[in-house]
Amino acid sequence: MNTRKDGRAHDQLRPLTLTRNYLPQAEGSCLVELGGTRVIVTASVDNTVPAWMAGRGTGWVTAEYGMLPRATHTRNRRAASALQMNGRTMEIQRLIGRSLRAIIDVSRLGERTVYIDCDVISADGGTRVASIIGAAVALTDADRWLMWNGYTERSAVLGLAGAVSVGIRGGEVLVDLAYDEDSSADVDMNVVMTEDGKLIEVQGTAEKGTFSRGTLDEMLAAAEGAIRTIISIQKRTLDTQ
Amino acid sequence: MNTRKDGRAHDQLRPLTLTRNYLPQAEGSCLVELGGTRVIVTASVDNTVPAWMAGRGTGWVTAEYGMLPRATHTRNRRAASALQMNGRTMEIQRLIGRSLRAIIDVSRLGERTVYIDCDVISADGGTRVASIIGAAVALTDADRWLMWNGYTERSAVLGLAGAVSVGIRGGEVLVDLAYDEDSSADVDMNVVMTEDGKLIEVQGTAEKGTFSRGTLDEMLAAAEGAIRTIISIQKRTLDTQ
Amino acid sequence: MNTRKDGRAHDQLRPLTLTRNYLPQAEGSCLVELGGTRVIVTASVDNTVPAWMAGRGTGWVTAEYGMLPRATHTRNRRAASALQMNGRTMEIQRLIGRSLRAIIDVSRLGERTVYIDCDVISADGGTRVASIIGAAVALTDADRWLMWNGYTERSAVLGLAGAVSVGIRGGEVLVDLAYDEDSSADVDMNVVMTEDGKLIEVQGTAEKGTFSRGTLDEMLAAAEGAIRTIISIQKRTLDTQ
Amino acid sequence: MNTRKDGRAHDQLRPLTLTRNYLPQAEGSCLVELGGTRVIVTASVDNTVPAWMAGRGTGWVTAEYGMLPRATHTRNRRAASALQMNGRTMEIQRLIGRSLRAIIDVSRLGERTVYIDCDVISADGGTRVASIIGAAVALTDADRWLMWNGYTERSAVLGLAGAVSVGIRGGEVLVDLAYDEDSSADVDMNVVMTEDGKLIEVQGTAEKGTFSRGTLDEMLAAAEGAIRTIISIQKRTLDTQ
Amino acid sequence: MNTRKDGRAHDQLRPLTLTRNYLPQAEGSCLVELGGTRVIVTASVDNTVPAWMAGRGTGWVTAEYGMLPRATHTRNRRAASALQMNGRTMEIQRLIGRSLRAIIDVSRLGERTVYIDCDVISADGGTRVASIIGAAVALTDADRWLMWNGYTERSAVLGLAGAVSVGIRGGEVLVDLAYDEDSSADVDMNVVMTEDGKLIEVQGTAEKGTFSRGTLDEMLAAAEGAIRTIISIQKRTLDTQ
Amino acid sequence: MNTRKDGRAHDQLRPLTLTRNYLPQAEGSCLVELGGTRVIVTASVDNTVPAWMAGRGTGWVTAEYGMLPRATHTRNRRAASALQMNGRTMEIQRLIGRSLRAIIDVSRLGERTVYIDCDVISADGGTRVASIIGAAVALTDADRWLMWNGYTERSAVLGLAGAVSVGIRGGEVLVDLAYDEDSSADVDMNVVMTEDGKLIEVQGTAEKGTFSRGTLDEMLAAAEGAIRTIISIQKRTLDTQ
Repeated sequence: MNTRKDGRAHDQLRPLTLTRNYLPQAEGSCLVELGGTRVIVTASVDNTVPAWMAGRGTGWVTAEYGMLPRATHTRNRRAASALQMNGRTMEIQRLIGRSLRAIIDVSRLGERTVYIDCDVISADGGTRVASIIGAAVALTDADRWLMWNGYTERSAVLGLAGAVSVGIRGGEVLVDLAYDEDSSADVDMNVVMTEDGKLIEVQGTAEKGTFSRGTLDEMLAAAEGAIRTIISIQKRTLDTQ
Repeated sequence: MNTRKDGRAHDQLRPLTLTRNYLPQAEGSCLVELGGTRVIVTASVDNTVPAWMAGRGTGWVTAEYGMLPRATHTRNRRAASALQMNGRTMEIQRLIGRSLRAIIDVSRLGERTVYIDCDVISADGGTRVASIIGAAVALTDADRWLMWNGYTERSAVLGLAGAVSVGIRGGEVLVDLAYDEDSSADVDMNVVMTEDGKLIEVQGTAEKGTFSRGTLDEMLAAAEGAIRTIISIQKRTLDTQ
Repeated sequence: MNTRKDGRAHDQLRPLTLTRNYLPQAEGSCLVELGGTRVIVTASVDNTVPAWMAGRGTGWVTAEYGMLPRATHTRNRRAASALQMNGRTMEIQRLIGRSLRAIIDVSRLGERTVYIDCDVISADGGTRVASIIGAAVALTDADRWLMWNGYTERSAVLGLAGAVSVGIRGGEVLVDLAYDEDSSADVDMNVVMTEDGKLIEVQGTAEKGTFSRGTLDEMLAAAEGAIRTIISIQKRTLDTQ
Repeated sequence: MNTRKDGRAHDQLRPLTLTRNYLPQAEGSCLVELGGTRVIVTASVDNTVPAWMAGRGTGWVTAEYGMLPRATHTRNRRAASALQMNGRTMEIQRLIGRSLRAIIDVSRLGERTVYIDCDVISADGGTRVASIIGAAVALTDADRWLMWNGYTERSAVLGLAGAVSVGIRGGEVLVDLAYDEDSSADVDMNVVMTEDGKLIEVQGTAEKGTFSRGTLDEMLAAAEGAIRTIISIQKRTLDTQ
Repeated sequence: MNTRKDGRAHDQLRPLTLTRNYLPQAEGSCLVELGGTRVIVTASVDNTVPAWMAGRGTGWVTAEYGMLPRATHTRNRRAASALQMNGRTMEIQRLIGRSLRAIIDVSRLGERTVYIDCDVISADGGTRVASIIGAAVALTDADRWLMWNGYTERSAVLGLAGAVSVGIRGGEVLVDLAYDEDSSADVDMNVVMTEDGKLIEVQGTAEKGTFSRGTLDEMLAAAEGAIRTIISIQKRTLDTQ
Repeated sequence: MNTRKDGRAHDQLRPLTLTRNYLPQAEGSCLVELGGTRVIVTASVDNTVPAWMAGRGTGWVTAEYGMLPRATHTRNRRAASALQMNGRTMEIQRLIGRSLRAIIDVSRLGERTVYIDCDVISADGGTRVASIIGAAVALTDADRWLMWNGYTERSAVLGLAGAVSVGIRGGEVLVDLAYDEDSSADVDMNVVMTEDGKLIEVQGTAEKGTFSRGTLDEMLAAAEGAIRTIISIQKRTLDTQ
């Protein structure tokens, strides 16, 4: 049997901690710690919408994603990453944005934009799923802030969303890959799911070779279990205070 | 029953035409016409590899994707699209690159890069899958060019790959969405598959709402059928001449 | 006597084919094939004018020029050409714009801009003159579209314009240089002329050494003959359908 | 008498906390908390030097400074700040770099660069002095790392440096300005000093009006006292563990 | 004793010549020659203010600074300096802007911006102080132009400002460093002062090692004397004509 | 008869003054004053050639062109002009470069590049021809510098080149257009010619309407006369000292 470096079972998540209101100046914020991966997420409310959607009386949610230069084992050049924002960054921030828009009714926001900023302080695999996990919490807090301050009448957030990575290594399905595991995986999949078990996004990629339909089904099942655990932690966090 | 604008059955592809050697100056090239979508694909052999992989004796395949300003119904600004290459473009060219690297043994290329350029002349939905369809043909021709000119000893391409979009609209699974269909779909999925039925990439996104596991299975089945047809057309094209 | 590679007489054009409405989504479009040179030209009508000319009730015509990465024998880097648009590109698009503005009465357009996009699919010399040839056709079609749709009352286009390159090689005047001829020419001249034989632009450059007034006169005479032929082909194309 | 919002005496620092090894993947790192201002500082050792100083056998220390989009009360646009790095950012990172080079003997580093990254998580005034305070600690740890791993024979760091802001508001000298105090100050000065009381940098700017020599002297005296306190906190932190 | 290359006394300025109205198309302009350093300064009046200060009825003064490619002994690349405006340039233009805003009452300008352009034709040390010297003259002339043309009722400029560099080399205080002296100085300080002897800016930097409070005092005294001389030359220039 | 604003005859140049060695740090330099147009030209010798021509033992001459922000009546934004160097600038610097390469035998330079920088201090029409006039002088001085310092054995410059603008206004041929004349001209032509009367470049453009062959001939004759005068002034300047 294939043992994981940190002793986890194949279907076991790394320890997940969510610290709400980590940056009190923001309308919503959350420090996500998923094993060695740490992400600061903020939700900022802006009273305008992009020009292309002005006048419709509806809002927008968009996400940006960044990494501190020394979040990784080797330092990344700051200027380079800024000037030519790479494809990976763009893919990730589009994924986060879509995931959040699936759990919010933007028509209830009024003409407001919620900017989600996900800044990776320390990267040990799963930074995009950690970002989604924290963003759902920060967005919920920003939504409450809008209601409590009388800007909106009822909650725009319809429910929570969780996300997890699943991979195939040596023929076995592993849940929540750490950086080393991710680098050596044959297939890499990210799944985003709502609290009522519906899919928002399924992105499976064969990094080496290809994969069968049967393998896809196994990965989806493993993802579903892990996401249920994640959503229960999000709920507990949001019920506190 | 939900009728498609162009009278197609739900599981029916648009007419697909592949014109090989459309740009004879390139080592491989193909004009892909998939309904109203037209893409010029070239495969260019370069006798170097990116700095980070030099000295390993192995090659690389990478893809770039662009669109003429008036490929779409409304003109896009050329300068804008060039200076800040948008996220959609980056996602697409990374998808094309990964799909091609799944059907080639780069170690057989020697230290060479094959650049795949996909330029959309006319866009009516499915430009990324049309690009992959044409790129598999152009890459195969470039691979033959390498062999016929004595640069490589045997074929590096291991088989063909096809791709198709599938969507859900009004609860029904539609194959190969035209632009209007794509805009109004609730779920949008792109599937890339090899000629022996293995998956390379599965990207399913809920554009409005979410989708169930059952729906995912239906979409995968429809995609598989369409890709088999596509691959048979690629093969026929490559057997000619 | 100095024989041309493709057997043409010194004053003979390469075969010229114009395909109107090549991209039906555009208000005007034309595929130009001049020997091995192929250019897609579109004319896009926009109902605004640049800020600096708003409020004058008059329109504008502007041109952009690009090349597919593999239009040439060796692939050009896409990113590079986009980020630092080179001087050659800028010269060419300014030349195309000026040439078209000489054959149109912009006051008849109303406050509208016609964007001309010239995208070179395959480059074998003379891409700027091929662009002008096709642009005059696409602009005429966009002008007709404006009238037929009731946006303008009468034609803004005053007549056609043709263009040709002429060069000196080995002391002899050659018309319509192919790429190999252009590279080895001592003097390179582009002439743009209206259908009534008036000059719009004369650009003669000594690439190696210098040239005399007598040689200039010979080149102008050769250009004039060739442009008459080109304009008759444009007219025939526009009379069809 | 002019009372400070948070009840501090005019010459009193805000609470200062230094958390060493905040990002263990870095050779040196420190989370600085100075009142509401929080900065993550890392020191990254790179085994090369800039091209212009290669071959001299000596090293280099350079600093970069950034701010999370929501570090401030209102969100700053990420893309904008990245593409056109503003003058304030450049001034700050040059100041940090010079301050550190004054306390290190770069010839003892060998041909290595130490990159100091200062990322502001939360900004409430004094981010540049907080960055210098943390950078001196992170640099010292990176220097120890080099020795302990046998890369260098003896310490390159010659001593510590502290920094503080001083301002004039309503005619009174205030030490360590919080954001609100800084915005309303008439004169703003930053002082960087070594542990033996020598000056590294004095930057005094009249934001409104001008200031006299006498006022300058008062500000320098106040800065000196505060920096002695800061350096004692740095030392205590570095003695732990 | 430490002799200066050009025979000057330690506290002696280089010859300073100010040519007013050097570019008559500008509202104010001045050619500054300070030894081998030559700077063209213009003051341009614009009848708008930046968006962030519109509607307050008050004006703004801002400065830009540039260098001709061959102002220095070795040519600097033009494109490079333009695309990534370096930190030094930004520091300098912010310093010039602040210095001028200290001698003007922007509320008397109305909603107008005065752009100060400082372009270094020849650089032999002290380009930033030469810029400030000339800018005070050009700004005064633009202020007079506004009054003489009836745009403003009374002078917005409250007095003149002068600036000088001071350094420590071999333990001795030197005034107005030429390029060679600046490169070899241990401490480099720039002081900007008003005509009534008040400080606007004090920027002292230890380039090598550190400096004591006593040294700082000596440098300030030397700067004060030199600036008095500079301001008398500015006054004489402005009284002419 | 059509009178010129400054009282000149139709075929009369504005006063032309050439100040050699205006920037002594450069290998060649010249301040050109042509009426109200003033341009600083420098020739900088660099001991390398562009990568694409290394190893051929031959040199290169290239030109760059810029304008101070307030060279014109209205200030141009510095940042804008730098970031997106406009087409006009590129056309001009390519024209200057080609003109100079026509009068030099680059094989005699060895592997060296001469950079010509033309910076317009004040613009009153004809800045590109003024640049060429001064560049021929500065290049000649740089060529002499190479010989006198023993880097080259004999002169690489083969002769001088002059340039002038000619235009048609109200049906009349005007030589050396000032800015106001240029703006109102119907046809604008720039001619570059060698000292032995051979053409290097002829660029005639119909700004409004078109022009006949007869008009072209008249303009060429007028240009030739003016350039002979210009070249005699260049020669006199170069013979001095």
